[in-house]
Amino acid sequence: MQSKKSFLQHIFLVILLGTHSVASAKQWLVKTPDEYNKAVKKVVAGDRIVLANGVWQDFEILFKGQGTEQKPIELTAQTKGKVIIVGQSNLRLAGEYLLVSGLVFKDGFSPTGEVISFRQNSTTLANHSRVSETVIDHFNNPDKFSSDNWVLMYGRYNRFDHNHLEGKSNAGVTMAVRLNSEASQQNHHQIDHNYFGPRPILGSNGGETLRIGTSHFSLSDSFTVVENNFFDRCNGEVEIISNKSGSNTFRNNVFFESRGTLTLRHGSGNLVENNVFLGNGVDHTGGIRVINGNQTIRNNYLSGLTGTRFGAGFVVMNGVPNSTINRYHQVENALIENNTLIDVTNIGLAAGSDDERTAVPLNSQFKRNVIINQDKQDPFHILDKVSGITFADNVISQTTASEINSGFSVSSSELEQADNGLWYPKDPKLAELGASRSLQPITKEQVGVSWYPKIAQTVNFTAGKITTVSSAEQLVTGLKNAQRGEQFVLSDGKYILDKILNIHTVVSIQAANSGQVTLLGLRSVMFELADGGSLKLQGIVIDGSEGIDAAGNVLIRNTKLPTLQNYTLELNEVKVVNLDVNHSFHVFDAGYRSMADLISITNSQFENITGDILRLNKEQDDLGIYNAEYVVITNNKFTKVEGAIANIYRGGTDESTFGPHLDLSHNIITNVGKGKRNKSGASLFLHGTQVNSIDANQFVDSAPVVLEHTVGEPRTSITNNQFSQTAQPVIKQLFPLSSAVITMSGNTNQ
Amino acid sequence: MQSKKSFLQHIFLVILLGTHSVASAKQWLVKTPDEYNKAVKKVVAGDRIVLANGVWQDFEILFKGQGTEQKPIELTAQTKGKVIIVGQSNLRLAGEYLLVSGLVFKDGFSPTGEVISFRQNSTTLANHSRVSETVIDHFNNPDKFSSDNWVLMYGRYNRFDHNHLEGKSNAGVTMAVRLNSEASQQNHHQIDHNYFGPRPILGSNGGETLRIGTSHFSLSDSFTVVENNFFDRCNGEVEIISNKSGSNTFRNNVFFESRGTLTLRHGSGNLVENNVFLGNGVDHTGGIRVINGNQTIRNNYLSGLTGTRFGAGFVVMNGVPNSTINRYHQVENALIENNTLIDVTNIGLAAGSDDERTAVPLNSQFKRNVIINQDKQDPFHILDKVSGITFADNVISQTTASEINSGFSVSSSELEQADNGLWYPKDPKLAELGASRSLQPITKEQVGVSWYPKIAQTVNFTAGKITTVSSAEQLVTGLKNAQRGEQFVLSDGKYILDKILNIHTVVSIQAANSGQVTLLGLRSVMFELADGGSLKLQGIVIDGSEGIDAAGNVLIRNTKLPTLQNYTLELNEVKVVNLDVNHSFHVFDAGYRSMADLISITNSQFENITGDILRLNKEQDDLGIYNAEYVVITNNKFTKVEGAIANIYRGGTDESTFGPHLDLSHNIITNVGKGKRNKSGASLFLHGTQVNSIDANQFVDSAPVVLEHTVGEPRTSITNNQFSQTAQPVIKQLFPLSSAVITMSGNTNQ
Repeated sequence: MQSKKSFLQHIFLVILLGTHSVASAKQWLVKTPDEYNKAVKKVVAGDRIVLANGVWQDFEILFKGQGTEQKPIELTAQTKGKVIIVGQSNLRLAGEYLLVSGLVFKDGFSPTGEVISFRQNSTTLANHSRVSETVIDHFNNPDKFSSDNWVLMYGRYNRFDHNHLEGKSNAGVTMAVRLNSEASQQNHHQIDHNYFGPRPILGSNGGETLRIGTSHFSLSDSFTVVENNFFDRCNGEVEIISNKSGSNTFRNNVFFESRGTLTLRHGSGNLVENNVFLGNGVDHTGGIRVINGNQTIRNNYLSGLTGTRFGAGFVVMNGVPNSTINRYHQVENALIENNTLIDVTNIGLAAGSDDERTAVPLNSQFKRNVIINQDKQDPFHILDKVSGITFADNVISQTTASEINSGFSVSSSELEQADNGLWYPKDPKLAELGASRSLQPITKEQVGVSWYPKIAQTVNFTAGKITTVSSAEQLVTGLKNAQRGEQFVLSDGKYILDKILNIHTVVSIQAANSGQVTLLGLRSVMFELADGGSLKLQGIVIDGSEGIDAAGNVLIRNTKLPTLQNYTLELNEVKVVNLDVNHSFHVFDAGYRSMADLISITNSQFENITGDILRLNKEQDDLGIYNAEYVVITNNKFTKVEGAIANIYRGGTDESTFGPHLDLSHNIITNVGKGKRNKSGASLFLHGTQVNSIDANQFVDSAPVVLEHTVGEPRTSITNNQFSQTAQPVIKQLFPLSSAVITMSGNTNQ
Repeated sequence: MQSKKSFLQHIFLVILLGTHSVASAKQWLVKTPDEYNKAVKKVVAGDRIVLANGVWQDFEILFKGQGTEQKPIELTAQTKGKVIIVGQSNLRLAGEYLLVSGLVFKDGFSPTGEVISFRQNSTTLANHSRVSETVIDHFNNPDKFSSDNWVLMYGRYNRFDHNHLEGKSNAGVTMAVRLNSEASQQNHHQIDHNYFGPRPILGSNGGETLRIGTSHFSLSDSFTVVENNFFDRCNGEVEIISNKSGSNTFRNNVFFESRGTLTLRHGSGNLVENNVFLGNGVDHTGGIRVINGNQTIRNNYLSGLTGTRFGAGFVVMNGVPNSTINRYHQVENALIENNTLIDVTNIGLAAGSDDERTAVPLNSQFKRNVIINQDKQDPFHILDKVSGITFADNVISQTTASEINSGFSVSSSELEQADNGLWYPKDPKLAELGASRSLQPITKEQVGVSWYPKIAQTVNFTAGKITTVSSAEQLVTGLKNAQRGEQFVLSDGKYILDKILNIHTVVSIQAANSGQVTLLGLRSVMFELADGGSLKLQGIVIDGSEGIDAAGNVLIRNTKLPTLQNYTLELNEVKVVNLDVNHSFHVFDAGYRSMADLISITNSQFENITGDILRLNKEQDDLGIYNAEYVVITNNKFTKVEGAIANIYRGGTDESTFGPHLDLSHNIITNVGKGKRNKSGASLFLHGTQVNSIDANQFVDSAPVVLEHTVGEPRTSITNNQFSQTAQPVIKQLFPLSSAVITMSGNTNQ
């Protein structure tokens, strides 16, 4: 539809262009930034600037003009999707009734703080203007923590629709509505039909997808409408949408497998309705978090959400009495009705209750909601008094806490799929409760543009071809030319490596016969993961005895260049021996601000190592920036390791992330962590990690496990371990206010 | 001369090439690596491969063949200096009687551990082979601590001569002779007429220029001759030459303004004669350090050397009784005669004496040496018994210590210049003592090649043109196109910066009228120093109040890309205020492995800063890698700074570096270091710095100075400071064996 329409417009305007006498709608086809800059100074209401198809390098577009409602000024592409803007480029709109469409920003990043900004500077804003059918794809500052924003809306009555925003990997909100001056408040912006494509885990604060307002201006009304958008795996941090102003509407959006929540963080009088949250059981998928007064949450459908605590499927918070503007205002007059929650693992009421957050919800209603958990586990966590919430006419699949039980009737958990594809209770008596069956979740196809694909790459070690290798040189050459997912199968024998093996894409290196392939490296590093590189080693023996005689060798590490892409590292049935030519020879050393989605070491052996196994401790700034989301170490033997098995550090006091997570289980750990250069003095050192499971390990003659809990609500379980000639784990609570959950059981001591 | 000869050869061989019947001397002109690889498989004794002029990308040369003494096989350039080898390239020689000449390696780095290696692999070496007239210029791995070596000599009877090696900036010895197998011992290599051009301060171990042997094989004889080489500002680390084998000769080399020493670290029976060390008073310039048995040091000329302790102008060490191979063998039968030392600040005898190094020099002679210090300060430091050294017929310019005084006669310190350009005592009676006046120091012109310039760039902030700037945009554009040494003079006014100012070369930014120019930054960073960028700010006011509201903003920092070039940062008459929009807003944050030659802050003011002033603490590995050589902070006012004035960290136990140096003097320091996020708890935190001078500062209501001395012999003086409501400095000795020199005097306390 759209493309047909714009094609017709195009024809029409080309005809106009042919007849110079028609002054009322001039079209300017420009081919260079210079031509553009000349044209934009001349355009008047009704004119149109067309960027010629091609690649535009380092193009900072200031689109400034005075259109009218009847005669807007337009900036568009000769062919939508064929105008590619690369390098140090951006777009600022300033004036009235401006329309932008059809541009693609990729292979570069903005030299300023925004890619698209609805203002020229703090005094010259855009109003009644629209950006549509525009793509921003991985247009990231290579310096991951050089913060910027892709889209900032200022002014009033602007619209941002049918755009495609994918792969923001550096710090900074993907899109924000600013209310920082009166001219941008009560703005009545419209944000609709956009594709908010995958945003990877940032591993720090600063990864929200959409923010409306800031705490400072949160008492102002925004009147922004966010509707019919598709949020696809927006996993940046704990908030997918951070609402920080009043009188906004969030309607008919789909949140697909996105970690985090739509959070009504500041501002009152907002409406959240007809949204669909589909978690599909993915870790940390959340729903809606309610704070402040006069919020309405109705007719939303939430399913398969696993999130906990503040990131749960549904949360009503406690407030702070007489809260300052940047803390928590009390929930009052909340109306929560006709929502359906299917297999939502956690629902928190009066959440966050502590010595500061003591103001419980008031004058609120929770009614006609349907809450079905097929596992019959009660999802409710009631953390303070909830007498200020009236519960009525709700349905639940099992009994729940006594304080609220009277507001629920218990129903069967049987489900049936409705015409809209969602699952509803089978019981016909419940037809009028919960979310409507007439909900029509927006689809990927209905958002963004049709001419740009919506496919996100994932790491899959078996997706590519199999290549047999029988010499070091073949391996080096093979890896140099490797295709995504390629699997290198090594014939039996010794491989002497005089070059660093550069891993630039997703590859696996496997022994044809487990244990019959030995790699010997002659360099200070054996494997270097470039940005975009993920590595699986399977069945390989690695012997460090030919490494150069210098301190600080590393078997595997990230590139020293900045990285934007998260990676995966897996070692299975790997044997690493003799990393001992000199001191501090480590197995893996994370890059300065690298981020692993997963590091997994399973069924492997490590012996005679003078350094650490995993160094995931690169933050020095204590800004909460960490190096790995999930670390899994299972079923291995570690023997005579001078450093730690893992040193994982997440500093600071930020609470915007879910990780890091550690799972250490079923390992035999002998003489580990006792080297004089092991500063932590630990066989395993964890600082600020969020989820720790240490289960069924044997520790023999080793340094203790040391955990430092910081802020948030870290969860630690240390169970069924055997400690022989090894001190008990040391758990430190560095911040007394934090509420760590610690489980210790089944451990034995010899 | 050379180029004429090779031109004639060229003509001759081209004629030969024209007559295919002459089988005895075939010439192969090759234009691609493929052609080369085909040719090299066919060459026989007497043949010659000529690389066509041009740029050769990613060319890994294996030059393998069997020449004979009469008929060597040659690899050369079509025109010497016109064959440029770039990218991932290197050269290996393997076989007999191979000659290489005329190549230039630049704009790249070796994919293996060497650029030029006299072997193919551990079993296939080169003998009777020669590399000549070849250039390696800044051919560095961009990952500074990915260690490699530029030239490794293996085999026997090889020669490396008339080469030009300049700008090795990453870790690893510039050149080494390896003795790691019998086939490389007693090698009789010749290393002569090479230009060892400037090597910057590495800021870590691993920056030697030439090493012969390793401790492991140091009891073997090497018979390597190192003569007529010019060492120009080889400042990598404390050893310029590290001799680690026996029976080598170091003759007629010039060491020009090079920090460090020629160290006879391991191995015995070496001869050091006719060398000239010209320090010109440059910091840490050293001479000769004697360890082990049967060393002869004669007829050397040393002048203007400022080095101290192990890096002094002349040092005879104590040994370790029954030393292991990698510690210190006792000095025995040393013959030290006819050396001239002019203005050599320090001479150490029985140096390093401690609980371990107790074996004093034995059966040694120190005679006919001339030691003149125009300042009449006695240079001798006698650190243990020196009765094992016979002192006779020496001359000195003042009396010296009683233990050795009888071996010296006192002479006038008057000097005159001899025909060879060096300065000798005027007293004609001394003509036969000390170094000969017939010494002919080799010149730069006599070494390396004539067709490659020997000019090293230095940082000079007034070398370029002056550009007047009056808007933020002009400043951004000007810096983008800045030429080396350009001086930007800013007209009075406010400059609002929505872009990061990228400093890619040496520039200064000055207020036309000091204090009348204010910079306001809108980004998380204001200045970013790229590799090669040095910055001076003069007279500017910087106000951080418009910075983005996020933790961790930085006013100035290095790029996040790896850097190889050392830089200078100077702030003079700068006023920095209101870096307080959020926590941890720092003034300067060093890049991960960046290295400053100098950071200087003078006559400036800092007020309301939530972070640190200087963060020079990026090492986490404790390998002794640090971020700044000299830090000078003089005559400033610091008020209300939550972090530290400087946090300088040099970890580990390595003793191969001279720095970091800190000079903090004449500052007024009020309410500094008391922020809750200041982990060090110090107003100034120093760990492992080597030279600290803290003089005449006023500390008011501030956190204490904290110093952690580590290894080596750090020198700290804390003098004439006033501490009001400020705790006394805390000095920790982290390693009890180290011998710190601490001076505290004149401090007052209120």
